[in-house]
Amino acid sequence: MKYRRERDLLGEKQVPEDAYYGIQTVRAVENFPITGSPPHPELIRALAVVKKAAARANARVGTLPQDIADAIIQAADEIIQGKMMEQFVVDAIQGGAGTSINMNVNEVIANRAIELLGGEKGDYTKVSPNSHVNMAQSTNDALPTAIHIAVLRLADGLCQSLQKLLEALRQKEKEMDDVIKMGRTHLQDAVPIRLGQEFGAYARVIQRDLARVQESVKHLYAVNMGATAVGTGLNALPEYMEYVTQFLAEETGLPLKQTEHLVDATQNTDRYTQVSASLKILAINLSKIANDLRLLSSGPLTGLNEINLPARQPGSSIMPGKVNPVIAEVVNQISFQVIGNDHTISLASEAGQLELNVMGPVLVFNLLQSLTILRNGIRVFTHYAIEGITANVERCREMVENSVGIITAINPHVGYETASHIAKLALSTGQSVREICLEYGYLTEEELDTILDAKEMTEPGISGEKLLFRDRK
Amino acid sequence: MKYRRERDLLGEKQVPEDAYYGIQTVRAVENFPITGSPPHPELIRALAVVKKAAARANARVGTLPQDIADAIIQAADEIIQGKMMEQFVVDAIQGGAGTSINMNVNEVIANRAIELLGGEKGDYTKVSPNSHVNMAQSTNDALPTAIHIAVLRLADGLCQSLQKLLEALRQKEKEMDDVIKMGRTHLQDAVPIRLGQEFGAYARVIQRDLARVQESVKHLYAVNMGATAVGTGLNALPEYMEYVTQFLAEETGLPLKQTEHLVDATQNTDRYTQVSASLKILAINLSKIANDLRLLSSGPLTGLNEINLPARQPGSSIMPGKVNPVIAEVVNQISFQVIGNDHTISLASEAGQLELNVMGPVLVFNLLQSLTILRNGIRVFTHYAIEGITANVERCREMVENSVGIITAINPHVGYETASHIAKLALSTGQSVREICLEYGYLTEEELDTILDAKEMTEPGISGEKLLFRDRK
Amino acid sequence: MKYRRERDLLGEKQVPEDAYYGIQTVRAVENFPITGSPPHPELIRALAVVKKAAARANARVGTLPQDIADAIIQAADEIIQGKMMEQFVVDAIQGGAGTSINMNVNEVIANRAIELLGGEKGDYTKVSPNSHVNMAQSTNDALPTAIHIAVLRLADGLCQSLQKLLEALRQKEKEMDDVIKMGRTHLQDAVPIRLGQEFGAYARVIQRDLARVQESVKHLYAVNMGATAVGTGLNALPEYMEYVTQFLAEETGLPLKQTEHLVDATQNTDRYTQVSASLKILAINLSKIANDLRLLSSGPLTGLNEINLPARQPGSSIMPGKVNPVIAEVVNQISFQVIGNDHTISLASEAGQLELNVMGPVLVFNLLQSLTILRNGIRVFTHYAIEGITANVERCREMVENSVGIITAINPHVGYETASHIAKLALSTGQSVREICLEYGYLTEEELDTILDAKEMTEPGISGEKLLFRDRK
Amino acid sequence: MKYRRERDLLGEKQVPEDAYYGIQTVRAVENFPITGSPPHPELIRALAVVKKAAARANARVGTLPQDIADAIIQAADEIIQGKMMEQFVVDAIQGGAGTSINMNVNEVIANRAIELLGGEKGDYTKVSPNSHVNMAQSTNDALPTAIHIAVLRLADGLCQSLQKLLEALRQKEKEMDDVIKMGRTHLQDAVPIRLGQEFGAYARVIQRDLARVQESVKHLYAVNMGATAVGTGLNALPEYMEYVTQFLAEETGLPLKQTEHLVDATQNTDRYTQVSASLKILAINLSKIANDLRLLSSGPLTGLNEINLPARQPGSSIMPGKVNPVIAEVVNQISFQVIGNDHTISLASEAGQLELNVMGPVLVFNLLQSLTILRNGIRVFTHYAIEGITANVERCREMVENSVGIITAINPHVGYETASHIAKLALSTGQSVREICLEYGYLTEEELDTILDAKEMTEPGISGEKLLFRDRK
Repeated sequence: MKYRRERDLLGEKQVPEDAYYGIQTVRAVENFPITGSPPHPELIRALAVVKKAAARANARVGTLPQDIADAIIQAADEIIQGKMMEQFVVDAIQGGAGTSINMNVNEVIANRAIELLGGEKGDYTKVSPNSHVNMAQSTNDALPTAIHIAVLRLADGLCQSLQKLLEALRQKEKEMDDVIKMGRTHLQDAVPIRLGQEFGAYARVIQRDLARVQESVKHLYAVNMGATAVGTGLNALPEYMEYVTQFLAEETGLPLKQTEHLVDATQNTDRYTQVSASLKILAINLSKIANDLRLLSSGPLTGLNEINLPARQPGSSIMPGKVNPVIAEVVNQISFQVIGNDHTISLASEAGQLELNVMGPVLVFNLLQSLTILRNGIRVFTHYAIEGITANVERCREMVENSVGIITAINPHVGYETASHIAKLALSTGQSVREICLEYGYLTEEELDTILDAKEMTEPGISGEKLLFRDRK
Repeated sequence: MKYRRERDLLGEKQVPEDAYYGIQTVRAVENFPITGSPPHPELIRALAVVKKAAARANARVGTLPQDIADAIIQAADEIIQGKMMEQFVVDAIQGGAGTSINMNVNEVIANRAIELLGGEKGDYTKVSPNSHVNMAQSTNDALPTAIHIAVLRLADGLCQSLQKLLEALRQKEKEMDDVIKMGRTHLQDAVPIRLGQEFGAYARVIQRDLARVQESVKHLYAVNMGATAVGTGLNALPEYMEYVTQFLAEETGLPLKQTEHLVDATQNTDRYTQVSASLKILAINLSKIANDLRLLSSGPLTGLNEINLPARQPGSSIMPGKVNPVIAEVVNQISFQVIGNDHTISLASEAGQLELNVMGPVLVFNLLQSLTILRNGIRVFTHYAIEGITANVERCREMVENSVGIITAINPHVGYETASHIAKLALSTGQSVREICLEYGYLTEEELDTILDAKEMTEPGISGEKLLFRDRK
Repeated sequence: MKYRRERDLLGEKQVPEDAYYGIQTVRAVENFPITGSPPHPELIRALAVVKKAAARANARVGTLPQDIADAIIQAADEIIQGKMMEQFVVDAIQGGAGTSINMNVNEVIANRAIELLGGEKGDYTKVSPNSHVNMAQSTNDALPTAIHIAVLRLADGLCQSLQKLLEALRQKEKEMDDVIKMGRTHLQDAVPIRLGQEFGAYARVIQRDLARVQESVKHLYAVNMGATAVGTGLNALPEYMEYVTQFLAEETGLPLKQTEHLVDATQNTDRYTQVSASLKILAINLSKIANDLRLLSSGPLTGLNEINLPARQPGSSIMPGKVNPVIAEVVNQISFQVIGNDHTISLASEAGQLELNVMGPVLVFNLLQSLTILRNGIRVFTHYAIEGITANVERCREMVENSVGIITAINPHVGYETASHIAKLALSTGQSVREICLEYGYLTEEELDTILDAKEMTEPGISGEKLLFRDRK
Repeated sequence: MKYRRERDLLGEKQVPEDAYYGIQTVRAVENFPITGSPPHPELIRALAVVKKAAARANARVGTLPQDIADAIIQAADEIIQGKMMEQFVVDAIQGGAGTSINMNVNEVIANRAIELLGGEKGDYTKVSPNSHVNMAQSTNDALPTAIHIAVLRLADGLCQSLQKLLEALRQKEKEMDDVIKMGRTHLQDAVPIRLGQEFGAYARVIQRDLARVQESVKHLYAVNMGATAVGTGLNALPEYMEYVTQFLAEETGLPLKQTEHLVDATQNTDRYTQVSASLKILAINLSKIANDLRLLSSGPLTGLNEINLPARQPGSSIMPGKVNPVIAEVVNQISFQVIGNDHTISLASEAGQLELNVMGPVLVFNLLQSLTILRNGIRVFTHYAIEGITANVERCREMVENSVGIITAINPHVGYETASHIAKLALSTGQSVREICLEYGYLTEEELDTILDAKEMTEPGISGEKLLFRDRK
């Protein structure tokens, strides 16, 4: 390979001749051979948007010559369109609070801009990564602003996925509204419920999750462009600050505005932990739902077998005919990943010191991964699992009829203590609750018919209420 | 000790003769000798409120005779007033989804009500813990409702603490607005900032925390009274359901209302995880602030020594004269506890199955502990640490004057590359930035005076902006 | 109340006249009203042991007058015997790295010693909490040493519990060795297994857990007495250091020895995180077993119902006859608590700085709680759940006979692809695997009898191996 | 693209004509578009080793024709050599307990073997992925065995890194043994210590970490080959089981042996959680060390500035001349990632049910990432940070001389109470401890010279011991 030589504060380094990145990127690659993965492409794109908006604003206030600004803007646009992605070679996990990500972008834009202006890569007298591309910026405002944009965009995709999941759950709620089955608490027979009610409960918690995610990302509309190094705004003109945020809003279509207190916004990462917390709660709820579905579809012959999940792939390399709830299982695993990521994010957030949290890279690595895998996982969950669920109606009905759990409906008519006695007999003798009530003369056949109406048992009210008040007179 | 004998589904047991609790409590005490601590008193009180409201509602709809209702109400009131607290003897961590906590309360109220009606403890034909005190309720609605009330009450105390902390931080923000000091990023010299700005940043994040906690607990106004066993409302009359929530609101002064979907509310615990998440984020932010204060007050002779924390106690059993930042340290530890508690709460929440989450006891144990220790810790943090902080103004000023970090202000005037060169020289030779600029002729004395105005460096703008535009012409 | 006045570095304070604690304890009580709970009694006892050993060593080397030493020793002995426990009033969570716990003990011993020597409480010229009781010690060596002792003692109880659990599991392994049932993977029907094999698996993992806990606590035999403030041993004579550890070993019966590198031992807390990690792994495994038992005993009519757990208490305040797996559930909750505690411990451990980790109090609070609740919970798990488990042999057998999962045994005889086809037919038609094999002529009745021997299927080997090799010739 | 058609249990699918993978891989790719990353290459390689050993064993016992075995072996060898890596296209996070990873490998080997035998890809009558490549195996033994091998190999690299870090720390311990500096507890001035002692403490904890990692991975030598589906060994001949493990040991050079209880090994994942726990503890310790180094090198002008870390890259895009402790920072971030991963692993481990833990994929994804990034990060930590650390000897010395902390050495000579008084005076007046002692006549110049020997203060003993005993006579 051929190389060019570049210089910085610490001396000289060779840079591959055709690379758009420069010496600081080379140093970072050497320093951080950690995960082998570059930063999330949405983050790179968002940084390019930041650079474009900054160049526009600097040109507008007169601190950046228009021709340089134009070249920077064009270079940034190319990145936004997905070009030169292979030039972003620094590792996702890196020291330096993201200076290396920022400088990687600064250098690629600078060299591309130099090229566009007819210069040679590395001739930073034409366009300087620091003095021009990074003008009036610090990593400490450019990167957080880019993180906000990247999170908002990925969250948008996630919310769309959640909306579809919600619709699918509501569809099942309606579809299965008349499937009466036994409810279980403690995994023990409880009282009747309808399958539609269960999916209605899933829909409600997912709806709250959607609201929580949407609420949490709103706080990211406030960006700290202009904060520069520590939030005091040193080297950023007030007019520039106004323009840059306005241009950012234009470029992204997001209602971005300058944050109220720049020092605060530069050091505190609670907005990220709040987003991550909303994702963690979502993950917990998804995992619970996935667990339920795996339980309800267990069997087919030695499990509960109340519902069927769509068969998606052979389930075993050794057991023929086996089909497993693989989509629900991957949802569990995504949930575990997201919960673990939230932990890493919390640790990173707590480790902020004084004017800056230098743990941004690992924080954003985890946050963007959580957003991405939730979005992806919820899509397959919706389309490959939820939408295709069917009920084993007969099986559900039979279990209600044979269960002792219906005794609870008899409770108000005979008292808890007598009902306990009936239940105990039923369980030990195998006789049905109905038979025992008749045999011991607790209730008549007619009364039992009124009380043990399965559908009525799944709605508020005392089953056979009128009998009760008759008795009480 | 003397005993009476009681019976339940599983047989007979001895109960201490003068105990208000009964056989189910005795079984629970035997089954769960875990932490040695009873449930949080706020939870007991809240359960008594639930029992009172239920008795009122049941009497109103005519399912509970008025005299029994009156006795139950009086017994509940006594508990609400803090009486009989020693009767709540079940362990805070217990199996059974809290049935034992609920039954402990049901039994104590029943026996006290029996006593009030002139009966003998244990004579449940007079007042039955299940048929009367627990009428139209299940642990699965009574306990979550009580948890909501207990959390809301403790959160109120926490929010009052947070409000005072916020005021103390704002007071310091004002007080220290003119203390110019070096900002640090990566713990390395950065650019000047004002101490007031730092406290302003703390105030802002605490303000968001207050809003987050307030927002998160609002979701607890919706309670699931009437859900009974699995949320279908079996055995709860619709009129009862209306009254009981209305009476609960009256008794507590909280804007409680019936939740929209009872099956959902009975099985999902996301409202608790959301409260806990808001507490975790608060804990992270408190820990960061405590870390900063410990850093800024480090020394006195071998540390940063920019601020002084009030001396609260001798710091060492061996080192005379040592005083440590003990209040900040306890805040860190409370934070770690709360973060760990959030983890336990998340695990418990994810472990819900089908119609119920049976892990409620450990969840509420941690949630109420987090609320309590944060409330307590923030109080001492505010009064014993924040309010008494003083600045070492001279020390702060000297560090600004000697620092190389001010080079950033010169950046726009000479370019990043030249400025790097000056900084490097300053660091290696020990000469000041000013001296080097003069010696090498980069800037005149007059220009330097204009640019290196410390106060101006702490506000947005290019220090010496007019020079710049002059140069650029 | 009557008070005496005491003085320290920071001034004067009132101390209740009859209190054995002194001014520093009073300050700590004021500073740390956090959890409302004092430190674990085992920690107090262990600190008293440390004080006794130190007094003996200091007297031996001649730095402490024998009469003062004798009084200190007697006072310490009283605490070891459980007396004066109400005098330890500082909060379990406290700032100052445990100085307040240490000083609370120093002060109580000093005042009791003064009393024994005929003096008045508070007259520290007779016996000084710092110069005499704490002689040649710092909180930074006395407290860690006490933590080691307390952990070792509680771990001993835990290991005894684990040993009994192990025996109970092995007993069930033997007892249920001939109960053939379906194995499940992914909660889906897999291949036959024996109930005894399942309990054998539980026994094996618990055996490893026991070994892990035992291994992890061994590292605590090395104590840092003599380290004093930062591990350099300033103010501790080498002869004292030898004696004090030797006396500690004598007093405790534990093979304690001086740690190799005192500076290391004073700042690093990895020995605690290792113990906590072993507890966390145990918790994970216990939770998995508890989950399995709850699953296997689910029903009775709408669940798997393969085993019965002993009935321990009525399961519902509303559903008569319901009995829940409450002991397994409390084991889950204990596990969640321990896992969350491990998180807090990890945070506390990571927060060590330079010569000391000041987060010791919250760390030890969680560690001792984890040890205690695991010990307690495992006891009830063993006696109230595991020992009484019975199998529903018939139910288990039927599920094997009706399952399609036995197709796997046929696999080697007909090939995976044909076997898949048979399985698919069986699942869709409801015909048994045997019937289809006969109908389609894949295997003869005789061959099927040989292959489908249920017991043989639960042991290594190809069921009907001889047929296979016959075929292959 | 051209396609071939393949069939399985669920029907037909198109497979890219030149793909070595087959229909089950295609299904998995469709089902799991989650992270976008394939499983770790070490895991793929290890699975190929498993397939090779199984083919050898099956051929040896006569269940697999030799020509097919040979083709499978050659195909597996090619993967082991790193060929066909692009054929492993299933996502790292996937449902199905890793069946898709296993089948991806089975299919690639089958098709490559078919090719080697002169057949056409997809003609599984020649070599079947299930009947031949997967013969006598299940995902449930093949995958865990491969995980063991992959973890052992990566752990080996990690331990080598740790060994080098240990040597570097010991080198610094020696090099800096005579640099006397102030020790700090609570970030407050404590007593003198030597820089070498601090690095000695770091070396000791890293040595324990190395031992912990080595100890934890030893448990992975026991593999469960032969367990097949649920650990009963159905379809695996005992002779095969012996050979396959023996061949695995040969192929890997690792002392692998068959695990004692196959059912246990197939369902329990505690060996992984133990490895992860050892990595978490390592991460905690690394993070503490990184924090210390960032603190000690803080400044240069406004921080502690006791040591210098090698300059690795310019530290700021806006602040010229700034150099940050980027290598230490990346170590913190790696630590946070590993701690979060341990959390995910714990969740996955706890989620095992009955005969299998289906959460293997996310578990191994995190475990292999932790091993990889720790290995990588420790390398750069050692070479780019630790090895180049230098001490600011003068600065260290000055801080000792000016500190009040040396008062502790005077303690035994004048008593804690008098020493407190001296310290208080020194802090309030700015006078030195020495001056006050002289002025108030507590000690003579000669005595002070003896007591305040800085080097002596950093070793066990009472500084000026002989004075003490003289006084005491």
